[in-house]
Amino acid sequence: MALSTQPYKGARDFFPQDKRVQDYIFGVLRNVVKKFGYQEYDAPILEPLELYKAKSGEEIVNEQTYNFTDRGGREVTLRPEMTPTVARMVASRRQELGYPLRWFSIPDLWRYERPQRGRLREHWQLNVDIFGEAGLPADHEVILVANNVMKSFGAKPEMYEIRLNNRQLINYLMKDYFGFNDVQSVTLCKLIDRMHKLERHVFEAEVDALCSPTQKSEDLSDKVLAILFVKNIAELPVELQSHPTVLEISKLLELLALSGVTNARFDLSIMRGFDYYTGIVFEVFDTDPENNRSMFGGGRYDGLVELFGVEHLPTVGFGMGDVTLQNFLESHHLLPVLHPETDVLVITVGDVYEKAQPFMSNLRGMGLSVAIDATDRKLDVKLRHADKKDIRYVIFVGDKELEENQYPLKDLKSGNEEKHSAERLVSIIKDFRR
Amino acid sequence: MALSTQPYKGARDFFPQDKRVQDYIFGVLRNVVKKFGYQEYDAPILEPLELYKAKSGEEIVNEQTYNFTDRGGREVTLRPEMTPTVARMVASRRQELGYPLRWFSIPDLWRYERPQRGRLREHWQLNVDIFGEAGLPADHEVILVANNVMKSFGAKPEMYEIRLNNRQLINYLMKDYFGFNDVQSVTLCKLIDRMHKLERHVFEAEVDALCSPTQKSEDLSDKVLAILFVKNIAELPVELQSHPTVLEISKLLELLALSGVTNARFDLSIMRGFDYYTGIVFEVFDTDPENNRSMFGGGRYDGLVELFGVEHLPTVGFGMGDVTLQNFLESHHLLPVLHPETDVLVITVGDVYEKAQPFMSNLRGMGLSVAIDATDRKLDVKLRHADKKDIRYVIFVGDKELEENQYPLKDLKSGNEEKHSAERLVSIIKDFRR
Repeated sequence: MALSTQPYKGARDFFPQDKRVQDYIFGVLRNVVKKFGYQEYDAPILEPLELYKAKSGEEIVNEQTYNFTDRGGREVTLRPEMTPTVARMVASRRQELGYPLRWFSIPDLWRYERPQRGRLREHWQLNVDIFGEAGLPADHEVILVANNVMKSFGAKPEMYEIRLNNRQLINYLMKDYFGFNDVQSVTLCKLIDRMHKLERHVFEAEVDALCSPTQKSEDLSDKVLAILFVKNIAELPVELQSHPTVLEISKLLELLALSGVTNARFDLSIMRGFDYYTGIVFEVFDTDPENNRSMFGGGRYDGLVELFGVEHLPTVGFGMGDVTLQNFLESHHLLPVLHPETDVLVITVGDVYEKAQPFMSNLRGMGLSVAIDATDRKLDVKLRHADKKDIRYVIFVGDKELEENQYPLKDLKSGNEEKHSAERLVSIIKDFRR
Repeated sequence: MALSTQPYKGARDFFPQDKRVQDYIFGVLRNVVKKFGYQEYDAPILEPLELYKAKSGEEIVNEQTYNFTDRGGREVTLRPEMTPTVARMVASRRQELGYPLRWFSIPDLWRYERPQRGRLREHWQLNVDIFGEAGLPADHEVILVANNVMKSFGAKPEMYEIRLNNRQLINYLMKDYFGFNDVQSVTLCKLIDRMHKLERHVFEAEVDALCSPTQKSEDLSDKVLAILFVKNIAELPVELQSHPTVLEISKLLELLALSGVTNARFDLSIMRGFDYYTGIVFEVFDTDPENNRSMFGGGRYDGLVELFGVEHLPTVGFGMGDVTLQNFLESHHLLPVLHPETDVLVITVGDVYEKAQPFMSNLRGMGLSVAIDATDRKLDVKLRHADKKDIRYVIFVGDKELEENQYPLKDLKSGNEEKHSAERLVSIIKDFRR
């Protein structure tokens, strides 16, 4: 039986036209983050499974990892996220690295999930992190970088929204303000994480259900609901507005406004799944009503690096997946038309493959990307081939042309054909390169 | 107990200084192959294990794959090589793709081996293939590309040697010329594959041992040894020199010489491990006597795509691993000194983080890569930090500087410090960018 030609389920083959899109996207990402002084790192796609057990969340470790035992008996997994890896690398050189440390990576990550729109089993994710800066400038900078990424793809402020929250505010509300115990807090946090997927009355019933009889008698669920749905800080009860964790959010919103970020707002429902967040958290939403959902996010995770037995290190970062990003760019018509980088197809006329070598080497030396068709097919087949490959120029090369250094150049876009010397050909093609 | 900070055994963490080397190497590779009209593709790192069972060789499949069963019961593996994957992709669009098709990729590959110099468990490999061209021009082109890759890294012809053979010649010799049966042929081929690692007398004894009593009485092993060690075609017995498979090698050497490749020669010991090769095969050797070994190679494999139940498609290609290549570049002192891309570190003087935002945004808009140090550390600590990060320029920004648009620019290389406007700063830094 013949072998299957399909890629692994939930993962993608990148044919050249797909790879060009990926190159364009990754190119924009790299360009933006490098402008902010971030340097790229990478690490093996295989990591010990243990690395994720502490902080990645039970669902990921128990249901979504691609883990196995290697031939030497080590329990390993394809990495489901990059944050534990970067924390490991920084911890391994904790004393040598200079801070603040700005690092980024675009790793491929694997999670065993049901493939659906915006969510595949293999995806790439831009990871941007700043280490060793405890103050708000670091939180501000990573959100500014995220915003610049969006702008650099041509996204307008009305196409997306940045929503901010503070994990310390959540902790304060749960424990001190509402008076929930640990079990209730965890349950409510998980509920809030899904609140936009639930109908309002279902959500309200679930909040009510988790309150104790005493809490019910005090109408605690009404108090919770009144706060959860506020859209800005001014709507919060006065005593909360002056709480330090809320002031931090206000200050951050002010800093962002001063940097020209006009589409950020407070949102108490932003939780982020991972256990490692300790302060400001944020998510970026697509505002398209057809697709109004969280695209990516991040926040402060000050405690992760010390899990490796080294000194505490404050950290803020975000991760942005390629699948969601590409969906956003496509649905907002922000992806440019991309052409192959091959400038010209040389078509040999007669048996001149050998003799044409110095000519082609000359074109390449002058900076052109040159493919050759030296097959014995008919001319019209060769021209159709060039067109199919989206190559704009064709040069015909035979004995006479090589002797006279005059080559017919055909522009498949205009249909024009003119004779030129090698040097002139190169300059014309370079001028009109797309 | 604290988590380990080490990467998986036999794989590498790429800290920014390592990633820069990888970027440089991959950049040169991409640049060269694109000049020849090759287009980049990619595919998931997980493939069905079945894909390798047909042609990758028993050692790889049974001893070296990172295979496991996924949560859905599929038998998968981290890819140990890229050729089966590219054959799968081409087969999936056999009719739609235009030929000759020029494709390349730089995938990461995994093999469970004992890590040693030039051989790690994870490595990246440039894969270059041309599909749909049965004639010698395709064989010639991929070897020319391989040679151009070496030249583009600054390698001189005397630093490496390209050795050619023909699998069809080997088949003819084994079966018709020597008269070996299939079992003897396979044994001898494997022996030849390791002949440069064996002492001459051991190799001779092993050749003798595989001959039958009749063959021994005819001194067949002498005949075999006389042929195996020839260094050029002229040394072959006359009747072999005119065999079509030898003529093909002669013609290829002639074509290569015409394209300026002066360091190619015939070598009957070049076998290549994979079962899928069907014609010309080649390997590139480091000529350094300290390290005289095969670095990479490839050849023609006309039968692979049809394993997927589609029409026959002639193919030639090669694979070049990053670990071996980097060792070669290092031992021949061909790696350039690489600096981080961060152009400048802005050091705030006083509490101006907010006010400095438009200034930094302006520098970035004019094309600079700008990091900021807004911590409250002492100035000399911040300067040491810039130097440690290998950032050449520092700009000091305080209230007065922002007001007057005159900023002290310190060149950490020369030690000079001068005041300039934002626009002038940018033009100075761009002029002296490394």
